[in-house]
Amino acid sequence: MTELAAVKAALRTQAVETPSWAYGNSGTRFKVFAQAGVPRDPFEKLDDAGKVHEFTGVAPTVALHIPWDRVDDYAALSAHAADRGVRIGAVNSNTFQDDDYRLGSICHPDAAVRRKAVDHLLECVGIMDATGSRDLKLWFADGTNYPGQDDIRSRQDRLAEGLAEVYERLGEGQRMLLEYKLFEPAFYTTDVPDWGTAYAHCLKLGEKAKVVVDTGHHAPGTNIEFIVASLLREGKLGGFDFNSRFYADDDLMAGAADPFQLFRIMYEVVRGGGFSSDVAFMLDQCHNIEGKIPAIIRSVMNVQEATAKALLVDAEALAAAQADGDVLEANAVLMDAYNTDVRPLLREVRGEMGLDPEPMKAYRACGWGEKVVAERVGGQQAGWGA
Amino acid sequence: MTELAAVKAALRTQAVETPSWAYGNSGTRFKVFAQAGVPRDPFEKLDDAGKVHEFTGVAPTVALHIPWDRVDDYAALSAHAADRGVRIGAVNSNTFQDDDYRLGSICHPDAAVRRKAVDHLLECVGIMDATGSRDLKLWFADGTNYPGQDDIRSRQDRLAEGLAEVYERLGEGQRMLLEYKLFEPAFYTTDVPDWGTAYAHCLKLGEKAKVVVDTGHHAPGTNIEFIVASLLREGKLGGFDFNSRFYADDDLMAGAADPFQLFRIMYEVVRGGGFSSDVAFMLDQCHNIEGKIPAIIRSVMNVQEATAKALLVDAEALAAAQADGDVLEANAVLMDAYNTDVRPLLREVRGEMGLDPEPMKAYRACGWGEKVVAERVGGQQAGWGA
Amino acid sequence: MTELAAVKAALRTQAVETPSWAYGNSGTRFKVFAQAGVPRDPFEKLDDAGKVHEFTGVAPTVALHIPWDRVDDYAALSAHAADRGVRIGAVNSNTFQDDDYRLGSICHPDAAVRRKAVDHLLECVGIMDATGSRDLKLWFADGTNYPGQDDIRSRQDRLAEGLAEVYERLGEGQRMLLEYKLFEPAFYTTDVPDWGTAYAHCLKLGEKAKVVVDTGHHAPGTNIEFIVASLLREGKLGGFDFNSRFYADDDLMAGAADPFQLFRIMYEVVRGGGFSSDVAFMLDQCHNIEGKIPAIIRSVMNVQEATAKALLVDAEALAAAQADGDVLEANAVLMDAYNTDVRPLLREVRGEMGLDPEPMKAYRACGWGEKVVAERVGGQQAGWGA
Amino acid sequence: MTELAAVKAALRTQAVETPSWAYGNSGTRFKVFAQAGVPRDPFEKLDDAGKVHEFTGVAPTVALHIPWDRVDDYAALSAHAADRGVRIGAVNSNTFQDDDYRLGSICHPDAAVRRKAVDHLLECVGIMDATGSRDLKLWFADGTNYPGQDDIRSRQDRLAEGLAEVYERLGEGQRMLLEYKLFEPAFYTTDVPDWGTAYAHCLKLGEKAKVVVDTGHHAPGTNIEFIVASLLREGKLGGFDFNSRFYADDDLMAGAADPFQLFRIMYEVVRGGGFSSDVAFMLDQCHNIEGKIPAIIRSVMNVQEATAKALLVDAEALAAAQADGDVLEANAVLMDAYNTDVRPLLREVRGEMGLDPEPMKAYRACGWGEKVVAERVGGQQAGWGA
Repeated sequence: MTELAAVKAALRTQAVETPSWAYGNSGTRFKVFAQAGVPRDPFEKLDDAGKVHEFTGVAPTVALHIPWDRVDDYAALSAHAADRGVRIGAVNSNTFQDDDYRLGSICHPDAAVRRKAVDHLLECVGIMDATGSRDLKLWFADGTNYPGQDDIRSRQDRLAEGLAEVYERLGEGQRMLLEYKLFEPAFYTTDVPDWGTAYAHCLKLGEKAKVVVDTGHHAPGTNIEFIVASLLREGKLGGFDFNSRFYADDDLMAGAADPFQLFRIMYEVVRGGGFSSDVAFMLDQCHNIEGKIPAIIRSVMNVQEATAKALLVDAEALAAAQADGDVLEANAVLMDAYNTDVRPLLREVRGEMGLDPEPMKAYRACGWGEKVVAERVGGQQAGWGA
Repeated sequence: MTELAAVKAALRTQAVETPSWAYGNSGTRFKVFAQAGVPRDPFEKLDDAGKVHEFTGVAPTVALHIPWDRVDDYAALSAHAADRGVRIGAVNSNTFQDDDYRLGSICHPDAAVRRKAVDHLLECVGIMDATGSRDLKLWFADGTNYPGQDDIRSRQDRLAEGLAEVYERLGEGQRMLLEYKLFEPAFYTTDVPDWGTAYAHCLKLGEKAKVVVDTGHHAPGTNIEFIVASLLREGKLGGFDFNSRFYADDDLMAGAADPFQLFRIMYEVVRGGGFSSDVAFMLDQCHNIEGKIPAIIRSVMNVQEATAKALLVDAEALAAAQADGDVLEANAVLMDAYNTDVRPLLREVRGEMGLDPEPMKAYRACGWGEKVVAERVGGQQAGWGA
Repeated sequence: MTELAAVKAALRTQAVETPSWAYGNSGTRFKVFAQAGVPRDPFEKLDDAGKVHEFTGVAPTVALHIPWDRVDDYAALSAHAADRGVRIGAVNSNTFQDDDYRLGSICHPDAAVRRKAVDHLLECVGIMDATGSRDLKLWFADGTNYPGQDDIRSRQDRLAEGLAEVYERLGEGQRMLLEYKLFEPAFYTTDVPDWGTAYAHCLKLGEKAKVVVDTGHHAPGTNIEFIVASLLREGKLGGFDFNSRFYADDDLMAGAADPFQLFRIMYEVVRGGGFSSDVAFMLDQCHNIEGKIPAIIRSVMNVQEATAKALLVDAEALAAAQADGDVLEANAVLMDAYNTDVRPLLREVRGEMGLDPEPMKAYRACGWGEKVVAERVGGQQAGWGA
Repeated sequence: MTELAAVKAALRTQAVETPSWAYGNSGTRFKVFAQAGVPRDPFEKLDDAGKVHEFTGVAPTVALHIPWDRVDDYAALSAHAADRGVRIGAVNSNTFQDDDYRLGSICHPDAAVRRKAVDHLLECVGIMDATGSRDLKLWFADGTNYPGQDDIRSRQDRLAEGLAEVYERLGEGQRMLLEYKLFEPAFYTTDVPDWGTAYAHCLKLGEKAKVVVDTGHHAPGTNIEFIVASLLREGKLGGFDFNSRFYADDDLMAGAADPFQLFRIMYEVVRGGGFSSDVAFMLDQCHNIEGKIPAIIRSVMNVQEATAKALLVDAEALAAAQADGDVLEANAVLMDAYNTDVRPLLREVRGEMGLDPEPMKAYRACGWGEKVVAERVGGQQAGWGA
């Protein structure tokens, strides 16, 4: 196989998981602008996700968010997904929207609230059993707003205890992916604020526990690709929540704010063997003002383009320049791949996959957007349920 | 008058405006935790504000937010305020919660939306006429989320045009206070992102237009007291929205995150003559997880304590050390005031004002919290209406 | 002229000024790593700058830094420049390396130090007279390290007074470019920390005073292209100091850290008419670990590439999508230009200019690097003189 | 023992290590302002450190920096220290000032440079043997400036290998303290950028390897006390490098920029049992513009004051409020201690220790500053040797 053929082969097998909640309404604390045609239930979300996969060819799975996607019959949901050409992916827990969680969930000072939170996580594992999902994705809104509000260290103890109980419940082939986040919704402390904290907990839990990197969850100036490289080196990178940001956790389309950063991240993934491993590539975004399905298609394409560029890096030339300490040449080798316009290559790959080479145009032309606006009238639009 | 007597006199005349919306529910995009006893209408908000003033003695005015505080009869509202010992303060506009404002208000690409936004601002001036308010406080959520989404410069032109129309409408003694904010809810550009932008617009508008400094609206590392000193020097400091933050616009209690910063700000206010001028000292906070009335009392007290410390700075000793270039001594003079425990002094001042020296305890003892929980049952709790 | 021809014509006339100090040694507070072959005097710096222009065709001027580039005979220096195909550009002042400047220069509490600083600035205008330079570029290291150390407002008064005296001295066609910087070397306050401060001073000084945007001098999260658009709208953008940064004022090669940001900046320049105006495009970089001449060539090329992409934006399509409020399409139009690989176009432009299409390779092949290493032996290498 | 007596007892046993290099000249990349009277060799540094301990009573040890403090006879140096009432503390390595270290030291792509770096670290352990020092403090300037410059993961492998060799060399009772730093002098990647990286390496090395927290080495918005609490919980907090910062690694006097943060850190130390353990409390500061000895005395006092406040927190009341979920009360308990003016208490403690209650005044009065200015004439002043 020629090198270009290998790059194309890798691109054909890429899989980016889309999040069910990105198909619903979202917003900021100031306002949620509802959009016409938004799904009213998990089944309609899968319908939309099916469209994204139909036109991109690389979005075969859909993450659920419990309780937003709770249904009576998960077998029916899985079947509906299959019918649309997709599968159920990771199960995301939610322990931040019940009134009991005002001061935390799994780290709450009150044992009864902690019990409730852990029970919810166990319920999620049960749903994974039903859907065949591999990954339980855990993000905790837990933290404090004021110095002194609660004891930092005791909260870590409670966190460890809760995670251990859930870890024990995991079945063969199931994993726990622990996400960290600098701040929001808590403003003084966050109980899993950085990769170090997530890593330390996962290390103690065991092989099935891995860290999730959400690209919007870092302090300004943090070198995310360094974290990616380190976690891959430690065998502890579970996956990504891709999105982009200018300031905080903006949840914009992946690659929209800093495409060079996304490329650098994907380069470390490729270099660290993460592309052909069990790392989960997921989106986690909020399309507050733009059309949701096309925004997700664009995001998937942005990840694809960054991946293509990363795959095109001339590894030999790079290694040689690095070994020589030739700063400018090593940088030039990397930039040469980044500066390449990979869109023609991706159009080719899509053609070979039997897809329209232009997913955005093809989606716009297919009439789905108009159809759902016309048909999805009445009922309760899906949203974050805040 | 001795120096200490002058400090006490200044403290007795201090006035911190509380925001009507801080008495209602608030939260993050993830969840609004409703609290029992929260006001259901502007009249009940004034009842609560009256309690804050009753116990602190330095919170005589209450800012309104339109449309959240829209009533049929503003004379009745003013009378109700007077009855509770307070007055209506600034009128805050809201051009971010109508569906039309998805892509902006006064900067929107569509002239019809801009018209609607300006009309709302003019309505707010009308309310000021009715309530006798001096200040129209303008904060715009306008901005864009993606590069290219709209034209940065054209949006500035639209902003200038809209502001000019509203400025023309201002009556004798009325002012326009323009607030800036780094980001949120827009994530790529914000149309008034920094003090420079607000200042440039106010300069062109004229004498009645001034800049508002919200202490939570800056990039990390921004020296806020420098901006305060500069705006006072230019005669363009209109007022403050006090709150505190660790990361972004956290809207925590003033002085909670960085009491030393609040002190430095108040020192520049005192040094620049802002304390005895027309600078408006307002709070703008969100009490997402803590009790609202006591949190506001605490915030008012924190501003008081910072002010007391600022007033205690030995100006002569400071000037002498600065003139000598004695870095350590100049710093020591400032820190000497900061390190002073001013709580005994403030207890004294309160005693002289006929108040309980301990506002928090006195409020807790008065039974108001229990009373409103018992009585304010049913109806729609006040909130941000997002 | 076709559109592409217009783009090429614009690219042929581009002019990026290189800084004399970038040809000398530089480093961090921890270490300056000296490089073999570095110039020993301003004449040798011009020799190197001549090479950069010879191979790029778009670096026709060289900025001086006084006193580092002080010579007895500026006519001889100008003649030497002309001989190498370049001209003297802006004159940069230095009021931060004399022991007297420990607590500031033009803002120092001691009038004698201020006098000395202003005299230096006046000397720089004299050098401009001698070299025919248009621009006096002012960056002040002034500031304080500790709260209380000096009076913020008095320092502004001193700054205004000093600038006014220098402004008066400017001749016909001469300009004063005032640079702002968030921090470093002062850590608590900086006397010109942001564009608002620089703008306010320039406004009062008059038409000849304009603001310089150094792309590394902002707080994290600052939207630089917004500032560029605003300053152009106000007629107050004097020029750029290009470089790039990940954290603070890293002074890396322009476009190396965030090429997308450089493109967005250049897009606002083009959109605001800044490309065909008197805006000065300068580099200000430190090549601490990489070869200096090739690093400068690379930087010039990076600016060129960003400019080419900015010129390729389909302005009509963009305006149409913006007017429609089509967020995704407007963003797509911009990204379409950014994602274009403009290197073939630039190779073509260079060919038409009679240059080697590959400046980096051509420079490496010409032997200059080896030549200066061999010849520039002995003497005192140029550096920052810290 | 009463509670206050216990607080005083704790304060009497506090030990803050001062760094030998803080007695010498330092500066920024722009300028080092030399000060009269600065030590010319390690013996004179110890003389100054002796004065700091003489007046504060809580600065009994002095950290060395090799090669800056390399001497022929370490026994003589130790004896000189003892003579001045102090002891040699941690040994700090330096692998960033030799020309070979342009691209790194222990992580350098060239094995020969790595060998040299490791040999230097081994030399430092040898010096520890000679001085009886417990701690080897390692800070690496290693990193890269440009994407692609070197391989992130390979550098981690090299780091691990080098550290392992040095760890093996540690004797009984000796420790390796690994410091992390976000950036500077490297601007793209830093090989030990955060506590997670330092922790992961220390974990693999073993019990004798611990993490050092330099309070100026974090990204904006990082909650340092959270890291302190976490490392204490993991048994991996080796010590502190105290200093303060507004922006980057400003190295200002401890407690000068954010005294509330220093208090919160010391509170977590007390709460986590770190105060009476083997955690090393060290200063690492640069007194670029202020007098060095008095600045160090002030810093020691600032750490003392923060410690006193932390010790005064009413732990029972705090725990009760936390258990109740009483956000405002818990915060109030903490703030009550912070708002206390502890200077009278510390004056008392000093009196009981036989010290002058006012160290700054006592030092100024003792004439040491004038004496060293008069006597330390000629020779080479100590500095960073950059």
